Amino acid sequence: MIQVQVIEALKKGIYEAKTTGKSIGFVPTMGYLHEGHMSLAKQAREDNDYVVMSIFVNPAQFGPNEDLDKYPRDLERDIKMAKDAAVDLLFFPQAHEMYPQDGGITIHAGAQANVLCGASRPGHFDGVLKVVTKLFHLVEPTRVYFGQKDAQQLAIIETLVRDYNFPLEVRRVPTVRESDGLAKSSRNVFLSEEERLQAPAIYQAIQLGIEHFKEHQNVEEAKKITTQHIEKGTSGNIDYVELLSYPDLTKDISTNTSVILAVAVFFEKARLIDNMMLNNKGE
Amino acid sequence: MIQVQVIEALKKGIYEAKTTGKSIGFVPTMGYLHEGHMSLAKQAREDNDYVVMSIFVNPAQFGPNEDLDKYPRDLERDIKMAKDAAVDLLFFPQAHEMYPQDGGITIHAGAQANVLCGASRPGHFDGVLKVVTKLFHLVEPTRVYFGQKDAQQLAIIETLVRDYNFPLEVRRVPTVRESDGLAKSSRNVFLSEEERLQAPAIYQAIQLGIEHFKEHQNVEEAKKITTQHIEKGTSGNIDYVELLSYPDLTKDISTNTSVILAVAVFFEKARLIDNMMLNNKGE
Repeated sequence: MIQVQVIEALKKGIYEAKTTGKSIGFVPTMGYLHEGHMSLAKQAREDNDYVVMSIFVNPAQFGPNEDLDKYPRDLERDIKMAKDAAVDLLFFPQAHEMYPQDGGITIHAGAQANVLCGASRPGHFDGVLKVVTKLFHLVEPTRVYFGQKDAQQLAIIETLVRDYNFPLEVRRVPTVRESDGLAKSSRNVFLSEEERLQAPAIYQAIQLGIEHFKEHQNVEEAKKITTQHIEKGTSGNIDYVELLSYPDLTKDISTNTSVILAVAVFFEKARLIDNMMLNNKGE
Repeated sequence: MIQVQVIEALKKGIYEAKTTGKSIGFVPTMGYLHEGHMSLAKQAREDNDYVVMSIFVNPAQFGPNEDLDKYPRDLERDIKMAKDAAVDLLFFPQAHEMYPQDGGITIHAGAQANVLCGASRPGHFDGVLKVVTKLFHLVEPTRVYFGQKDAQQLAIIETLVRDYNFPLEVRRVPTVRESDGLAKSSRNVFLSEEERLQAPAIYQAIQLGIEHFKEHQNVEEAKKITTQHIEKGTSGNIDYVELLSYPDLTKDISTNTSVILAVAVFFEKARLIDNMMLNNKGE
């Protein structure tokens, strides 16, 4: 595995892949890798001749009250995991390499960013759009891999790629789950023993809501069923339960052919998110 | 010359060039081609194996009070001129092909857009950034060609490419001039006979200002010399005479190693612009 920190070295590393017509799969991450990232890398490995992973804790997507410095890092372990995933090139730039200067041009997410998790993180998705645009240009991938767990991020990046004609394909990778259905997350370790036993109710609740929506197409009723199941089965406090169009993420579900049921729940020391998508309003 | 109107056909057309490792030169235009465009195409032809030209009157860069429908068009003549310039592929999409939907993600120029011509055209350069980002992704060129005459557009696009790591090179093409020094422009035909005789004073005035600045590094004095020469030599009304850093376009000329002296002058029925750049503050 090639390990590079500067753009020039990245370009050299991928030059051979590009000029020999190899397909390039790209997995952008903020490091502190877990099984979710591994499933992205595994899919990239299956689909492509050459796999690039990036590790960059992007300052542009942290708000003034969000602690960039406290974001967990473990580069040594990440390198080992990337090697295990048969990544060909690992790019882990410093911030000054990614943002050496700023001419003031900005990219802004639209209404998609004002709902779900974005509602409480103003500017967060603008920072995501900035870094993925830069990374996509640097790596020039054939395919990029994002997890369905971060559904809002996925929706916004799919919209960016579609509306700005990026010459690449976005691959959605399904959420990896524990055997009891709980979505895997590095935050699950912050759950108390009791909370951990309750947490699978979140995914059950989403499934119940989706099943009901499939049959009755009633948004409010589906949300109510999901809400009640979480309230009954856990000690957590619901941040949101939303059923929206996908990828527009509007309450007018007629704007897209897909919908998403997305949930965020606060426990004592962890906020968990999960979601399910329904394509063509019934499949 | 291949002539295409839809993205799918464009992609097919350039596929062969890409997969055989040919360099691609790209000349984006709004059509109604003149000698300025021809000099861009000529340079692209010299530098590259394959030359793509686009003709697209971009609605996104017209303000609500600017008449998109009145923008001059002559596709038949443009096609002939593109052929004469040995363009390999001409892409002239309809608006619905370029903007089939809008997920609300926007790109905004920074302070660079608030000076010179941009000061009176709010949002104009946002529209330029949108369309060039899309076109760059569609054509995936090795090199793109812009005229130095539209210096503000050039500065903003160079900043976009630098700050967002577009994998391409921006080539500045010098302003094409009449034998008496007047910058060529499709607007020159709107000058009266007398104004046409006066108009070369604009370029002379810029040269005088630049010469003075080279020697004395005095911004205000250089602007004054330029202003006075235009006022003395023409019946036009000055819109602006500015000496700014390049490409940041700020009054603090220490922020870049280049400066630009740029001028806009209103005549009876035409507004003319011209400029000169000075690299490394003295070359």
